[in-house]
Amino acid sequence: MDKINVAVVGYGNIGRFAVEAILAAKDMELKGVVRRDASAQQPAELANVKVVSNIDDLGKVDVALVCGPTRSCPEMAKALVQKGICTVDSYDIHGELWNVHEMLDEECKKNNVASIISAGWDPGTDSVVRTLLMAMAPKGLTYTNFGPGMSMGHSVVARSKAGVKNALSMTIPTGTGVHRRMVYVELEPGAKLEDVTAAIKADSYFSHDETHVMAVESVDALQDMGHGVLIERKGVSGKTQNQLFEFRMHINNPALTAQVLTSCARAVIKQRPGCYTLPEIAPMDLLAGDKESLIKSLV
Amino acid sequence: MDKINVAVVGYGNIGRFAVEAILAAKDMELKGVVRRDASAQQPAELANVKVVSNIDDLGKVDVALVCGPTRSCPEMAKALVQKGICTVDSYDIHGELWNVHEMLDEECKKNNVASIISAGWDPGTDSVVRTLLMAMAPKGLTYTNFGPGMSMGHSVVARSKAGVKNALSMTIPTGTGVHRRMVYVELEPGAKLEDVTAAIKADSYFSHDETHVMAVESVDALQDMGHGVLIERKGVSGKTQNQLFEFRMHINNPALTAQVLTSCARAVIKQRPGCYTLPEIAPMDLLAGDKESLIKSLV
Repeated sequence: MDKINVAVVGYGNIGRFAVEAILAAKDMELKGVVRRDASAQQPAELANVKVVSNIDDLGKVDVALVCGPTRSCPEMAKALVQKGICTVDSYDIHGELWNVHEMLDEECKKNNVASIISAGWDPGTDSVVRTLLMAMAPKGLTYTNFGPGMSMGHSVVARSKAGVKNALSMTIPTGTGVHRRMVYVELEPGAKLEDVTAAIKADSYFSHDETHVMAVESVDALQDMGHGVLIERKGVSGKTQNQLFEFRMHINNPALTAQVLTSCARAVIKQRPGCYTLPEIAPMDLLAGDKESLIKSLV
Repeated sequence: MDKINVAVVGYGNIGRFAVEAILAAKDMELKGVVRRDASAQQPAELANVKVVSNIDDLGKVDVALVCGPTRSCPEMAKALVQKGICTVDSYDIHGELWNVHEMLDEECKKNNVASIISAGWDPGTDSVVRTLLMAMAPKGLTYTNFGPGMSMGHSVVARSKAGVKNALSMTIPTGTGVHRRMVYVELEPGAKLEDVTAAIKADSYFSHDETHVMAVESVDALQDMGHGVLIERKGVSGKTQNQLFEFRMHINNPALTAQVLTSCARAVIKQRPGCYTLPEIAPMDLLAGDKESLIKSLV
């Protein structure tokens, strides 16, 4: 069977783990990595990987995993789709997701390829779980509880405040979808914790949540890429109340995101032209192997 | 928008709950119930429901929910497909499932309709969770732990032994997919618990599991339709070890099965001709509503 030719576009945290996931997938061929500066000294783990600054230099690519910063994903995906390449990304701005879906759907249909967007864990696999739970108990409440884990967005905002050299914002679930923010800051010389705390708490990123700010010697010493989620639903199947569901995980965040992107490389080439989110994809399309063995082992 | 015309074929435990689930679904019309004896006095809850012994008497039916005994589901589904009606069933004999899939797939393609088989919770929604976890962590072990809950199959076997008037076999999870059987028996006058215990433990249904047999005054007084599952996976995403996942539920068993069947009535009419298991279906197809609202609220 022909292998799926996959390229990684962007080489930050997720791109790094995507390379590992593709190399571990026996049905995929890693065609290479696309980086802005391909001429520079490359990290050791890319010694046997082709690194280019233009995807056209990688030969035939079936699927590109778009691993750039989330805001730039839609434009990166659009440019790739226009080259006739299927794309997968983990775009995670919930409020903008539908607009991106519409834009890419049109572009995909014009170019006869498919794209899967928001294919990380939230949005992504969590979205599949929430969808499934709605089908199992159509009436009721679902709570998504994140953490404990680092919030990249909140950390960046805390770091932007005057007097802050480095910051780490941890998301702590306190139940029913409510979260506490634990913010660890490394102060600039002369900066006062009191002022920094006030500035952080006043920011709209933090003002709606219970927020605690603490000064530490080294933020780097606290950093860990573990994250987690607990999705809970209590609902009604037909007329039967009190159906109880829980989905929980404790995972390495970029490793899981990259693995979901990689599994989606299999699914995207099986879809009709258009743009999809994960709940619009048959889960079995994410796996390698023939239908008979998959059904026998998983159903 | 036109409602989906749904019929319930078979009126045991699951059929009863399926009627409730269809009546609770705003996008569905319950066309009626098909029972072997439609002339008899019908139960009170069917007062406003058309009951027939031949589905042809229900007018236009888009989807039939096949709620007969599991062994008869494939033949019932086949006969309905031959009438050009889409079917959904909760066929649960894991070892035979692939053969049924092939048989119905051929029949569906001939008749230009679709069928979803094994659409309960296991096989069914549990299969979707297992598939999703494989895509998230391709290497590793998944354990499916059932219960606590009644096993219909084991209860029937225990009831078949000499000296047993009635029996209830509870499945108790002891971890890593291993189960204990707690069997409650009502003895015939003169029967000895010792003999009954030996007969039950010698049966291949019980001989591989830790089995405890207890005599009780009334089996009926113990019966409860609650059931549960815990699916656990510990695996590897890319090269990253120790990714931990859990899916847990505590539910009314026939109510959940019937709700999954009902949600599948929406999905089955959206598929191309052929036979499908749940992991082969896009989860969003299970829900009512337009794509934009679903994506905005669930993804």
